[in-house]
Amino acid sequence: MKLHELAERLGCELRGDGEVEIDGVAPIERAGPRDLTFLANPRYAPHLATTRAAAVILAPGHEASLPCLVSDNPYLAFARAVELLRPATRPAPGVHPSAQVDPTAVLGPDVHVAALGVVGRGARIGARSVLHPHVVLYEGVEVGEDCVLHSGVQVRERCRLGNRVIVQNGAVIGGDGFGFARDGEGRHHKFPQVGIVVVEDDVEIGALTAVDRAALGETRIGRGTKLDNLVQVGHSVAIGEDSVLAGQVGVAGSTRIGSRVTLAGQVGVAGHLTIGDGVIATAQTGIPGSVEKGLVVSGYPAIENRAWLKSSAVFARLPELQKRLRELERRVASLLEKQATG
Amino acid sequence: MKLHELAERLGCELRGDGEVEIDGVAPIERAGPRDLTFLANPRYAPHLATTRAAAVILAPGHEASLPCLVSDNPYLAFARAVELLRPATRPAPGVHPSAQVDPTAVLGPDVHVAALGVVGRGARIGARSVLHPHVVLYEGVEVGEDCVLHSGVQVRERCRLGNRVIVQNGAVIGGDGFGFARDGEGRHHKFPQVGIVVVEDDVEIGALTAVDRAALGETRIGRGTKLDNLVQVGHSVAIGEDSVLAGQVGVAGSTRIGSRVTLAGQVGVAGHLTIGDGVIATAQTGIPGSVEKGLVVSGYPAIENRAWLKSSAVFARLPELQKRLRELERRVASLLEKQATG
Amino acid sequence: MKLHELAERLGCELRGDGEVEIDGVAPIERAGPRDLTFLANPRYAPHLATTRAAAVILAPGHEASLPCLVSDNPYLAFARAVELLRPATRPAPGVHPSAQVDPTAVLGPDVHVAALGVVGRGARIGARSVLHPHVVLYEGVEVGEDCVLHSGVQVRERCRLGNRVIVQNGAVIGGDGFGFARDGEGRHHKFPQVGIVVVEDDVEIGALTAVDRAALGETRIGRGTKLDNLVQVGHSVAIGEDSVLAGQVGVAGSTRIGSRVTLAGQVGVAGHLTIGDGVIATAQTGIPGSVEKGLVVSGYPAIENRAWLKSSAVFARLPELQKRLRELERRVASLLEKQATG
Repeated sequence: MKLHELAERLGCELRGDGEVEIDGVAPIERAGPRDLTFLANPRYAPHLATTRAAAVILAPGHEASLPCLVSDNPYLAFARAVELLRPATRPAPGVHPSAQVDPTAVLGPDVHVAALGVVGRGARIGARSVLHPHVVLYEGVEVGEDCVLHSGVQVRERCRLGNRVIVQNGAVIGGDGFGFARDGEGRHHKFPQVGIVVVEDDVEIGALTAVDRAALGETRIGRGTKLDNLVQVGHSVAIGEDSVLAGQVGVAGSTRIGSRVTLAGQVGVAGHLTIGDGVIATAQTGIPGSVEKGLVVSGYPAIENRAWLKSSAVFARLPELQKRLRELERRVASLLEKQATG
Repeated sequence: MKLHELAERLGCELRGDGEVEIDGVAPIERAGPRDLTFLANPRYAPHLATTRAAAVILAPGHEASLPCLVSDNPYLAFARAVELLRPATRPAPGVHPSAQVDPTAVLGPDVHVAALGVVGRGARIGARSVLHPHVVLYEGVEVGEDCVLHSGVQVRERCRLGNRVIVQNGAVIGGDGFGFARDGEGRHHKFPQVGIVVVEDDVEIGALTAVDRAALGETRIGRGTKLDNLVQVGHSVAIGEDSVLAGQVGVAGSTRIGSRVTLAGQVGVAGHLTIGDGVIATAQTGIPGSVEKGLVVSGYPAIENRAWLKSSAVFARLPELQKRLRELERRVASLLEKQATG
Repeated sequence: MKLHELAERLGCELRGDGEVEIDGVAPIERAGPRDLTFLANPRYAPHLATTRAAAVILAPGHEASLPCLVSDNPYLAFARAVELLRPATRPAPGVHPSAQVDPTAVLGPDVHVAALGVVGRGARIGARSVLHPHVVLYEGVEVGEDCVLHSGVQVRERCRLGNRVIVQNGAVIGGDGFGFARDGEGRHHKFPQVGIVVVEDDVEIGALTAVDRAALGETRIGRGTKLDNLVQVGHSVAIGEDSVLAGQVGVAGSTRIGSRVTLAGQVGVAGHLTIGDGVIATAQTGIPGSVEKGLVVSGYPAIENRAWLKSSAVFARLPELQKRLRELERRVASLLEKQATG
């Protein structure tokens, strides 16, 4: 594809030779002479002088000797360029003969069910959705339109996925929540988990992530929210829209997480809390109580990020502080003694 | 079902109109006029005045204007009510024609093996156990009676599950332990993991949880213990009875965990330790050494919970303490100077 | 097998009766009269006097009344003895009739594809490799020679595994990396993940571990590196040779980890960092910045292990330090007052 054509399709301003032929995409330091690259993170700016790329997408204000596409959001423009230059191939519609699709299941037009999938009684799959091999839908599951479920995904009874939902390999949607009633002898009796999971439109769920069904009612993942790999979402949790939960985050039961929240890797959130819109928790934060909207929190137990950074800096000097305290005690004791004897 | 009938079957005292018809279950704030609800956590007590529920299970001492079932353990009674009102449907006995069951495997009466399961050579499955689609039992696996294995569960060679064991989707029982012998050049040689996993009666194992087989001997999960999702149990670990390991807990190899232990979410326990009966570790605790029975521990490295709470409170004020220390140093220096020059 | 025969095959010096018959292996405290055992960890040395084992592998310098095999690396010698005495059984070559192998896939000699596996278009499997039941290889996957892929493993399109790679159950290799470009309204647009994963020779990957494919280019796991269960490796990460990542470790995108690095359980490493050769991070460490080679780090945020141990010790005494600080303030105030009024 010629660069001027890309510029038009991406809605970017073109600087330099629009006749350059582009047929690949690559990071700035590894791009070759037919690759498009991008500059979003300023620390890669020095590569601009040396890159072998054919062209670069960058923000206004940067200078470059190679042909450029100028965009206010170079990363997003590049993501779209990758879609154009490396288009995903959808498997052809149809049900593989080895798949076990219950006769009561309802499949929309152009659905693909690959080898060895299982579609349970009364399940429904919307138009153009793709089930890669070895996907299991229990009875009554509903999958919307244009979804992609990768191999090894399990969706439990009656759970519902919206449109354009992507589920990476091995994720489990709707496993039983972890609920037990303890009797007088300390034994745990299972609380039947009869609720469901609702996954709204445009959600992505990572590999080997587990979203538990509610005990009663529903667990809900809001529109556009993205869950990374190995995330645990407890029963009856509700997550708002456009939130991001990074790898290995855990959210305990009945907690409500707002919209545009960011939980970085390995964050843990206790149960029955409310995390406000726009909250950011840095990696490994442990959140034992509700957090008001817009706060940035860190540490375990979580406190405001700026305070945590300062306390952490002092933590590293605690042995020195302890010494200084001892020294002061010695001096003050000597002063007091002098005073007493003086 | 009429309320007086429920009262009898649950062994609860009935207060109010026993002729009320119940056909659903719901949380107190969402219950409708034909739903049973419950009150266990006192912070939901205010809802008692406004709930639209038909009836409520609660502890003695509470007053309510709607019909009540009185129980010393309302949560447990409600769990049983849910079982009665929303009974689980067991799949019909039989082996799906697409399942691959080795002819040497032995299946008890009324076993269900769903589509595309694999039952290896010499495996045994006890009466009434259910294997949902896509379960794999390697050779020589033994599964007891009345077990439920959800789709995507993998059980490795020769591992043994007791009776009434429930395994959620995608869990792996008996994967190789993580054992390597390092040679003189720093390369790792696999130590063959020839032991097994033994899961005792009434255990539940969460989705995507991994319980590793022992190098030699066995890894053991004791009767009635419950593991949540994404838990890692290392090789040769032994866990006692009625313990609870919440989501994303990790236990390293050869550690022994007692009975009635609670490890909250994301707790990590190092290898070769002994954790006594009844120990509680709060969320994200990191346990580097053995813990005596009955202790409540927190933090990383774990210390007693009360001490940790106090130290954490001071941690948040460390910058202020540092300032106060500096100020004291300044004052003492001035006192000393005065004294010297006085 | 007679002990002298074992001595020869392991290259160990024999002390005592070489005619002893060995047919089992066991830990020193549980070994029976036909078992070989070993002593590597000195804290088990007291068992040497009481073990019922037939023979023991130990390091020079230990005395024992039972027959011994002397080795400078008893654990490694014992690992090899286990291989000899409990040899792994490889499944017979062949493709199970229920497996779905694309006609364009290329299988080397003596490959085993078990029940219900899926081998995609153009995939290649090297000689003698074993795919247990329910393994899925997407199109264009390459698996080397003598690999073992356990049941439930998913390998995504075009990813490549070297020779002698072992993958435990349910691991996912090549799921989409977690990359989104945010637009002006705070919505996340998927950045297409068009790279791959390359797993070099002699790597082992644990159960339910997720190694994400690169956005562009590749994610790489170096020769001889071992990943435990439930590990998350982000997109475009590169790990060197002979490194060890324990259970539930998470490494965020684009980070480079050196060779012979050890990350203990539940360690988290942020993205875009460089972790030098030989670095050790103790359990639960959170690493927010690059780490120079050879360092031992701990804590969150990570600092040098020795400093962290000292600071942690003071942390546990913070309430006491705070009291002492208050007491000092009181005394100094009184001194200053005396001075003013004196």
